[in-house]
Amino acid sequence: MCRWLAYSGSSIPLDELLYKPERSLIDQSLHARLGVETTNGDGFVVGWYGAGANTPVLFRSIVPIWNDHNLREISARVQSPLFLAHVRASTGTAVQQTNCHPFRYGRWLWVHNGLVREFPRLKRALALAVDESLYACIEGSTDSELLFYLALTLGLEDDPPRAVERMVGLVEDTGYRHGAEYPIQMTIATTNGESVWAFRYSSEGRSRSLYYSRDVRTLRELYPERPLLHEVSDETRIIVSEPLVDLAEAWNEVPESSYSHIREGGHELHAFHPR
Amino acid sequence: MCRWLAYSGSSIPLDELLYKPERSLIDQSLHARLGVETTNGDGFVVGWYGAGANTPVLFRSIVPIWNDHNLREISARVQSPLFLAHVRASTGTAVQQTNCHPFRYGRWLWVHNGLVREFPRLKRALALAVDESLYACIEGSTDSELLFYLALTLGLEDDPPRAVERMVGLVEDTGYRHGAEYPIQMTIATTNGESVWAFRYSSEGRSRSLYYSRDVRTLRELYPERPLLHEVSDETRIIVSEPLVDLAEAWNEVPESSYSHIREGGHELHAFHPR
Amino acid sequence: MCRWLAYSGSSIPLDELLYKPERSLIDQSLHARLGVETTNGDGFVVGWYGAGANTPVLFRSIVPIWNDHNLREISARVQSPLFLAHVRASTGTAVQQTNCHPFRYGRWLWVHNGLVREFPRLKRALALAVDESLYACIEGSTDSELLFYLALTLGLEDDPPRAVERMVGLVEDTGYRHGAEYPIQMTIATTNGESVWAFRYSSEGRSRSLYYSRDVRTLRELYPERPLLHEVSDETRIIVSEPLVDLAEAWNEVPESSYSHIREGGHELHAFHPR
Amino acid sequence: MCRWLAYSGSSIPLDELLYKPERSLIDQSLHARLGVETTNGDGFVVGWYGAGANTPVLFRSIVPIWNDHNLREISARVQSPLFLAHVRASTGTAVQQTNCHPFRYGRWLWVHNGLVREFPRLKRALALAVDESLYACIEGSTDSELLFYLALTLGLEDDPPRAVERMVGLVEDTGYRHGAEYPIQMTIATTNGESVWAFRYSSEGRSRSLYYSRDVRTLRELYPERPLLHEVSDETRIIVSEPLVDLAEAWNEVPESSYSHIREGGHELHAFHPR
Repeated sequence: MCRWLAYSGSSIPLDELLYKPERSLIDQSLHARLGVETTNGDGFVVGWYGAGANTPVLFRSIVPIWNDHNLREISARVQSPLFLAHVRASTGTAVQQTNCHPFRYGRWLWVHNGLVREFPRLKRALALAVDESLYACIEGSTDSELLFYLALTLGLEDDPPRAVERMVGLVEDTGYRHGAEYPIQMTIATTNGESVWAFRYSSEGRSRSLYYSRDVRTLRELYPERPLLHEVSDETRIIVSEPLVDLAEAWNEVPESSYSHIREGGHELHAFHPR
Repeated sequence: MCRWLAYSGSSIPLDELLYKPERSLIDQSLHARLGVETTNGDGFVVGWYGAGANTPVLFRSIVPIWNDHNLREISARVQSPLFLAHVRASTGTAVQQTNCHPFRYGRWLWVHNGLVREFPRLKRALALAVDESLYACIEGSTDSELLFYLALTLGLEDDPPRAVERMVGLVEDTGYRHGAEYPIQMTIATTNGESVWAFRYSSEGRSRSLYYSRDVRTLRELYPERPLLHEVSDETRIIVSEPLVDLAEAWNEVPESSYSHIREGGHELHAFHPR
Repeated sequence: MCRWLAYSGSSIPLDELLYKPERSLIDQSLHARLGVETTNGDGFVVGWYGAGANTPVLFRSIVPIWNDHNLREISARVQSPLFLAHVRASTGTAVQQTNCHPFRYGRWLWVHNGLVREFPRLKRALALAVDESLYACIEGSTDSELLFYLALTLGLEDDPPRAVERMVGLVEDTGYRHGAEYPIQMTIATTNGESVWAFRYSSEGRSRSLYYSRDVRTLRELYPERPLLHEVSDETRIIVSEPLVDLAEAWNEVPESSYSHIREGGHELHAFHPR
Repeated sequence: MCRWLAYSGSSIPLDELLYKPERSLIDQSLHARLGVETTNGDGFVVGWYGAGANTPVLFRSIVPIWNDHNLREISARVQSPLFLAHVRASTGTAVQQTNCHPFRYGRWLWVHNGLVREFPRLKRALALAVDESLYACIEGSTDSELLFYLALTLGLEDDPPRAVERMVGLVEDTGYRHGAEYPIQMTIATTNGESVWAFRYSSEGRSRSLYYSRDVRTLRELYPERPLLHEVSDETRIIVSEPLVDLAEAWNEVPESSYSHIREGGHELHAFHPR
């Protein structure tokens, strides 16, 4: 199990979300409350987009995030309008940077919380379904990275929701053929630096937790004493696998079998149907 | 806060205590129950004595113990009649091998759970009290290592209980002079490869937890189905900061302000008086 | 490029070869003389067989070998009659434990110095040739590990020389089809804990260096002052990518396109023909 | 031995100096030419000042610099008008972040190449000479860090050249009293974010190499084809322990027993006299 967050909106220093909130991601890495594992100390990645840069920057480490001084130094100085962060609890695959999320391909980032069941038995069939030109880009050994390359194979860059639906359909088909009762359990976020798509789905219909922040105008009324809420734009949103702050009213749950699309001009929820 | 264990008795593979028990040290590093911190992921050391070797071997790492594959490989093959293991939760000093316990000096090992309060203000005065010939041996920056070198300065190699009592007396005096209300909180184990001394003390009289295993003959009657208990000698003992197994009747608490002395021929409890 | 050694013979402490010789492997990791790269600081593995154990032990690290204190502590205490050690200089793939050699499968170990040319373009075709039951065992991203699983697929456990010849044949065929002029460059050692096979081959006929130690009886006459030579059995052999000691007369070169077979009762050189 | 560089002038991306030049610092870490050791793989630090920030940022790692992907990602995006970088070759003290330079105190950075001879015997006497309020700030175990805190004790923040001269005088006195023939060997750079002072001195009068770049106007005439030289201000300077580029005419040696002072408005060389 893992914990992740996605931020999109006004440019803010990374540490505003990574370190400063109660129940921050750093705190969750030591003591997650909603997850299967309480400790997420098997590496982390922060990926962010700069002003005008096409390719996001990745800061990856297998040190537990609470011990990484370089991230602490840098996150106070780096401003970004869109970033993803993920703290990992390995479910068996090696603890190495190439197994830490977000993964990157060109302008795209991808994080996953969950698993493909019976993955050792499915792995070869899934890897063969990756486009030939992408196969050698796979650097690690996780199910999560393979899901990313399958989604890229199935059109992620053109139509992310359809590509993820087709990817899940492929994984479920492959899983059922290999005898997995519930092949996939996932929350996923992916972004091209402009929009963020966040998915919540599992074959068994009991998916890992996922939340999105309510409208900033509402939050300002609820919490007038929080200066950051007054500095960011109305369209700023956060998506998290576990609420970052102990503000009970700031968060809505992403419903089962649905996805959230965050982009300039608004936030939408849609149903998710594997294809 | 940290978790540690000391084993003395028949030679056994290290993994019998490190990995196999319920509530093993590895499990405690992920989710300690009795400690101040629940995660002890800031490095670890296992120190063991071989057959006939004078100097113990140290295996040190800043990787969380649950992720260290080398320890897993080796601990199944290494047999030892006396070993100490410690998983660290830093209270602020750097996460580096030289800050991980047990520390070693010649034949001696030393582990500590607890802290010296107001340590930054006391550090110089305490360091000056270390014998000149030992000062350059200090490799790290922790209070725990400094306590070891103070005890060595005050006669650890000749009379361990008296040396630790004098060390605590010195720390308390120094602390009170610098305005610390309760200068020291500690459980400590030290060994020369033959005996183990384990101390429980704190200036405030509310010390961190410490347990020793009951007589093996009693344990065999209580748990006749555990083969390891029938293989080890009658004199085998374990001392732990937190019970290793969910066998409620296997453990006695080391009382406040006392120390346990484990050696060939028996186990003794004594009162502990700082001097 | 990398440096490796294989030892087979009387049981000796690991440090006798890893640390003590002039031009030891540790020294070669800092300043190799015969290789393409002078520094081999991108991780290392030592794999050894114990007395009677079927599965070899692996000690793996991405720390440069000259800085690994745990290996130094352990290698003085571990005795082994057969071990492989490898220091890595990455040619581009990630520096992570799963990319460090020797690789292990059951009782087998495998080390490689060299490369598969145009590997990113060949990788998928080669991976597809790995047996389905073995595919999910691949943990890393190197050409070297893939060569191992191809050899296992092609019968390594039954007839190692034929399996390696078939593996090289497959790689060359695949490479030529993808436009690689000289698909493979290699020295390889593999062992099941009883015999060691060491191969020297390259498609261009100019292979990386490889040496085997001369008969111990001859060495004793040449170097009567070396006590270790008098302690080990007559059949003890070392194979190295670069001579370990500055004893000019201790080493014979393994010829181009040939392999060395070291086993109880003798040492043989054979021609190597990709199939 | 180590390699370091200091840059002061127009704001440039860090990678312009760290990665792009022939004989860059990364290249020197693998194969230094002028140093005692050829490999500087025992950790590194890059410290830089931002626009307007008082406290410099530190990026520290014990990974060899050639393997640190995070530095590579970040150094292309970070612009700085003043930065120090150092690659370490340990002369015996532990490989840990707290032993890597530059060290930081408030606004000040400090790097050192060289050593204090007989350091284990001098260490306590030197540590006692550190101001009481600074003692607990010492995090590591190197001679280099202790030199920094001695210089701070002796007035570095008020008059850097005099403080370094007094520090060297103190080290030499202490060394001579303890029987060291040549107590100190050093090149040192220190900066408060505005000026850089770079010192070259050794008790034996044969100091480690140190170079400063010639006037940018001269360099533009010599190398009209280098665009970076036309982008930076006339006052831009680099100080290096080993020339970064194979441009024979770009560098002047800092003379024995002297120091270089780089600041807005000019560059000066002065004699250095221990006091």
